[in-house]
Amino acid sequence: MVNTSIDLDRIVSLAELEALAGQMLPAQVLDFVAGGSWDEVSLADNSAAFRRWQLRPRVLRGTPPVDLRTELLGRPITMPVGISPTSQHGHCHPDAEIATAQAAAEADVPFVLSMMSSRSIEAVAEAAAGSGPGPRWFQLYVQRDMGFARSLVERASAAGYAAVVLSVDMAAPGYRDRDARWPRPLVGTYANFPTDEGDLRGLASRQRVPLTWDDVDKIAGWSPLPLVLKGILVEEDARLAVDHGARAVWVSNHGGRQLDRVAATIDALEDVVAAVDGRVEVYLDGGVRRGLDVVTALALGARAVMIGRPAIHGLTVGGRGGVRRALDILRTETERAMALLGAPSVGGLGPDHVARPRSSTETIAGREFP
Amino acid sequence: MVNTSIDLDRIVSLAELEALAGQMLPAQVLDFVAGGSWDEVSLADNSAAFRRWQLRPRVLRGTPPVDLRTELLGRPITMPVGISPTSQHGHCHPDAEIATAQAAAEADVPFVLSMMSSRSIEAVAEAAAGSGPGPRWFQLYVQRDMGFARSLVERASAAGYAAVVLSVDMAAPGYRDRDARWPRPLVGTYANFPTDEGDLRGLASRQRVPLTWDDVDKIAGWSPLPLVLKGILVEEDARLAVDHGARAVWVSNHGGRQLDRVAATIDALEDVVAAVDGRVEVYLDGGVRRGLDVVTALALGARAVMIGRPAIHGLTVGGRGGVRRALDILRTETERAMALLGAPSVGGLGPDHVARPRSSTETIAGREFP
Amino acid sequence: MVNTSIDLDRIVSLAELEALAGQMLPAQVLDFVAGGSWDEVSLADNSAAFRRWQLRPRVLRGTPPVDLRTELLGRPITMPVGISPTSQHGHCHPDAEIATAQAAAEADVPFVLSMMSSRSIEAVAEAAAGSGPGPRWFQLYVQRDMGFARSLVERASAAGYAAVVLSVDMAAPGYRDRDARWPRPLVGTYANFPTDEGDLRGLASRQRVPLTWDDVDKIAGWSPLPLVLKGILVEEDARLAVDHGARAVWVSNHGGRQLDRVAATIDALEDVVAAVDGRVEVYLDGGVRRGLDVVTALALGARAVMIGRPAIHGLTVGGRGGVRRALDILRTETERAMALLGAPSVGGLGPDHVARPRSSTETIAGREFP
Amino acid sequence: MVNTSIDLDRIVSLAELEALAGQMLPAQVLDFVAGGSWDEVSLADNSAAFRRWQLRPRVLRGTPPVDLRTELLGRPITMPVGISPTSQHGHCHPDAEIATAQAAAEADVPFVLSMMSSRSIEAVAEAAAGSGPGPRWFQLYVQRDMGFARSLVERASAAGYAAVVLSVDMAAPGYRDRDARWPRPLVGTYANFPTDEGDLRGLASRQRVPLTWDDVDKIAGWSPLPLVLKGILVEEDARLAVDHGARAVWVSNHGGRQLDRVAATIDALEDVVAAVDGRVEVYLDGGVRRGLDVVTALALGARAVMIGRPAIHGLTVGGRGGVRRALDILRTETERAMALLGAPSVGGLGPDHVARPRSSTETIAGREFP
Repeated sequence: MVNTSIDLDRIVSLAELEALAGQMLPAQVLDFVAGGSWDEVSLADNSAAFRRWQLRPRVLRGTPPVDLRTELLGRPITMPVGISPTSQHGHCHPDAEIATAQAAAEADVPFVLSMMSSRSIEAVAEAAAGSGPGPRWFQLYVQRDMGFARSLVERASAAGYAAVVLSVDMAAPGYRDRDARWPRPLVGTYANFPTDEGDLRGLASRQRVPLTWDDVDKIAGWSPLPLVLKGILVEEDARLAVDHGARAVWVSNHGGRQLDRVAATIDALEDVVAAVDGRVEVYLDGGVRRGLDVVTALALGARAVMIGRPAIHGLTVGGRGGVRRALDILRTETERAMALLGAPSVGGLGPDHVARPRSSTETIAGREFP
Repeated sequence: MVNTSIDLDRIVSLAELEALAGQMLPAQVLDFVAGGSWDEVSLADNSAAFRRWQLRPRVLRGTPPVDLRTELLGRPITMPVGISPTSQHGHCHPDAEIATAQAAAEADVPFVLSMMSSRSIEAVAEAAAGSGPGPRWFQLYVQRDMGFARSLVERASAAGYAAVVLSVDMAAPGYRDRDARWPRPLVGTYANFPTDEGDLRGLASRQRVPLTWDDVDKIAGWSPLPLVLKGILVEEDARLAVDHGARAVWVSNHGGRQLDRVAATIDALEDVVAAVDGRVEVYLDGGVRRGLDVVTALALGARAVMIGRPAIHGLTVGGRGGVRRALDILRTETERAMALLGAPSVGGLGPDHVARPRSSTETIAGREFP
Repeated sequence: MVNTSIDLDRIVSLAELEALAGQMLPAQVLDFVAGGSWDEVSLADNSAAFRRWQLRPRVLRGTPPVDLRTELLGRPITMPVGISPTSQHGHCHPDAEIATAQAAAEADVPFVLSMMSSRSIEAVAEAAAGSGPGPRWFQLYVQRDMGFARSLVERASAAGYAAVVLSVDMAAPGYRDRDARWPRPLVGTYANFPTDEGDLRGLASRQRVPLTWDDVDKIAGWSPLPLVLKGILVEEDARLAVDHGARAVWVSNHGGRQLDRVAATIDALEDVVAAVDGRVEVYLDGGVRRGLDVVTALALGARAVMIGRPAIHGLTVGGRGGVRRALDILRTETERAMALLGAPSVGGLGPDHVARPRSSTETIAGREFP
Repeated sequence: MVNTSIDLDRIVSLAELEALAGQMLPAQVLDFVAGGSWDEVSLADNSAAFRRWQLRPRVLRGTPPVDLRTELLGRPITMPVGISPTSQHGHCHPDAEIATAQAAAEADVPFVLSMMSSRSIEAVAEAAAGSGPGPRWFQLYVQRDMGFARSLVERASAAGYAAVVLSVDMAAPGYRDRDARWPRPLVGTYANFPTDEGDLRGLASRQRVPLTWDDVDKIAGWSPLPLVLKGILVEEDARLAVDHGARAVWVSNHGGRQLDRVAATIDALEDVVAAVDGRVEVYLDGGVRRGLDVVTALALGARAVMIGRPAIHGLTVGGRGGVRRALDILRTETERAMALLGAPSVGGLGPDHVARPRSSTETIAGREFP
């Protein structure tokens, strides 16, 4: 599936990587990767919302070389960008999660392994550890079988994963027209499951369990790993997350794949940051495609952003090298943006670097003018 | 007119049903069904307005299986969705209102029979009663001949209809370019009229009668059935409706077919709900195409929503089965949306689940970005 | 130039009339008629702005047959719609202003003759007087030659014109790309001028005179006719107009042909109405294409609206009958709109029938949804 | 590269000049000239933002012939429009900066020579001085080699340049997809450098120096010329500029080529004007394409506007004559706009001539209506 004639260094934007991946992926896989739920309003809005925020550049601040380093959950990383959990990388590249994890390790940024991965917790850990210092985190859906979920957390802990990311936005599967139109669901490999369950719909139905805040307390006790809650969009839940011992709140609308018409994550961020009030770290994913998005999220209080589809695009186009290229592009863009903002370190980014969503900026009457 | 090779179960959205119906209906019927008045601003806005409301999902609330049951006018139904009155189903399918009413009865949701139906009050009642428990309501335009209108109400009451829905937005016919461009009006069958009047324009002109609030009081006395006023958009009239004994206020702009440039119904809802202040039930139709629309309307205070064109599309594509499919899709979507909102019953939906229309979300300068 | 095979009665909207006229007019004339100044922002916005106002229909008010009659400058007319002055109707139809004026007279609405007409003041008056009761007004640009301007006013007064409409927005010609791209200006006939000057540009340059409010006082004394000031957009000038004895203020941006990027006239209306405070009548032109536009302007305080291009389109398509058709369509649409608003007479329309420009109603991210 | 068959006098707008230049420039040069950074949001918004401001025309003010004269830095010029520094005119026309400078001199408006010019400081000065009275200013990037920068300023001062324009928005190069996609950077000629460095990227990297406000104080002392700071967008920096002795603040986002998603310059202007509070002059560039843009900027407090790309387009299409044509079009348009605003001199333009960005003006639901 890899077209080795692509010169990765000639790719200059994540948009190009997406276009290339779109030509390489089988149609049903592309629908699964690119699609969102219902009318895909939030999917589109995640990216559009970033462009509505205005940046406020400061000049003549003697900007030294930009330093992107930061810390997540007490561990230093080289830039405030990690890789979101997405399922079954095996659909995109033969090296699957091995390649993605290795690229992240090499770049020294966090890689979050989906519970629904094509390669096992242990295999990914082993391969990535040899590639670089970047940490691995483990993402969890809690299914009806609590014992099995606990066993996965214990395996992740034993294999050196540094955090557990609990997805909390899966009370039901999102209604995804694109997937539902295919006569049969995508057949996959789920390396962490005792048997190949081979059917995403079957798995999805297994995931529906009436999970509660009390369960969060229990899950936190399954391992010594810090617990991150992924899929929070409103301030009330952000406060509850802190109260229930989460070490980080991850603002996400599941890439526009669960409930549609919710806030774009960058628009939801401010309220969550205010509610959390510095007590825990805040991350964000959804629509991040440019270094400008990274600086906007950081200026509004995120500690890091995560990319999902861009990593999949990189993986599809060039395996480990493609994922690395995606990370490198974001790194370069973010460095440039910070230099131009007059903020040479991530700690220097703050609310003064962004302005409220600008007033309507469309042309009059929807016409284009010469 | 039915294409029996369509696998109804493979249809995943009301939009697909609409597209299929658009290919099957004769051009003039399609213009009549799909068209609105004047520039069709309100027609388009009814749907667009739903997408401007933002949903606020809550997580980890231990969501049990979603329960869609509710009560309308004191009678339990299986979900807060009914079928709006639309005329002359005979243009769309040979089984006409029989099929539509049977599908609703089977699904146990209200079916509102138009006074201008292709099948008679009695025939519809008899056929539907054998198909399931769903209730039937009767819709009325009051024409110059008050006696005839009263006889229709009495027939509906005798035939077991459970409510009278008086349309109040017909002081004049909407100005509909699409219909007016046809050299001759659509010829129809009006089963409830003593003779076949055969001409919508003729009927339309008969309907223009200077109806007043005093008339409402009289009409309420024609039968023991509760009276619902359909076609109210502003708070002043909502208050008057309550004062004049209406048992429910139905927020409608007649599917964008009467006065154009009025508020989208979902945007008009809040004011009406506030004016009614819980004294009577509030319903809404116009632009409902997704379960997301249903939860938005309920969160803003509607007791139920009604669908007009989607039922016609289902009827066109698959008769009774097609209407049923439309209802089933909405049911599934609404269940998913409620689970993802963390609101497992209709009573649990409230203003906290929606946010004000979001600020302008278009891209800058109307351009699309990579 | 008239295509007699067009069945005028089958035309249902002014938009259709415009489309037909666009096919019949020579390219340079079409550019002159359809074009605006600079980027044509105001040209497009004049119509778009009407659609941003929301109408608030009231029901069950016992609406009797709608009565469109009103009075302008003390004279009764059959509806609050008149014909704006536009130059050189001879480019569009051999009967030129004769046809336009006759249609207006027949419909009993005001016809405003442009000073730059293809037929003379006297010829138009004589022909129209035999066609019906509708009044004629005379429009004036004041050129360097004040004496000549005065002679025109005296001729109009002698010929039975009922008002003088002084254009005040011509301090310089609008910058019109479309016209400027033609190698030679449009050659025309100016029947009111001593010699055929044959060149619009030449005339335009003659019109530039530093006209002042003091001149208004003088011009008002040239005849006993009431003076209307046309081309006012801001409250300061509206107040000055009243102070200087104008009998009416005509809100206009010259159909988007003079200064561009000014307010759409319907958006400018409120301020002007408030400034005038009932002391004189207020008219509006610009973008009126639907009866909905008429009721919106009246609800916001205009006493009448005027149509420019729609009359030209009617003239082009069908001469006198085409102009009449344009007026009849507007009449029917306005009647329908008023009945549906629950306001059966023009005096019954008021601010409660409109709501502030609605909040942004575009779809999210500029996408169309199914 | 010049197509001598183009009749420059037949070109009526800067948009036409741009279209013609687009057909004449080699693809890579066009990408360099037309492109912006990242998603080109600010590039598009610079022009769109002007159209969102509303103009408020006043009438009957006895407008005499419009007088566009003003003074910049104490020197009279014929209109408040100058030419922004852009690099390497040699890519567009064999006469390069000689032609551009001569046209500006002839029109008696300021020409700002880029440090990165294809012709030397001295050659441009000599050629232009013979063409007319218009002043020349010198634009400077400060590179690592402060001594070399100082020598350039001294050369400019000796050659009669009247001001030094220090670019302060170059802490890093903007991320420009279009340029980066070309396999090799554009090869150019930099006449002011000791050797042909031949590579924009090389030069760009040289420019990254941690310039500070203290450096501004030093640079101001390198010559007796007044210092203008170009590339300021926020009020905080505008105040600092005044504090550090700048004689003018130039509001610019580098034509959308440096940080993207910043404010359109016309939207940034108000804050800067308020911060500067009349202590120094304020200029603006970015998106100026119409005389309407000029009057908007002046009404909001700019002393002059500068054009970058339009001069390049003129140069490409017709050399010196093409640049002159661009200036002449802007002059005519500005005169017309001022006459129509009722403001016959630049001093007469003020905040009363503009209104706040108008509320959303798109059509409903993104549709176009007939």
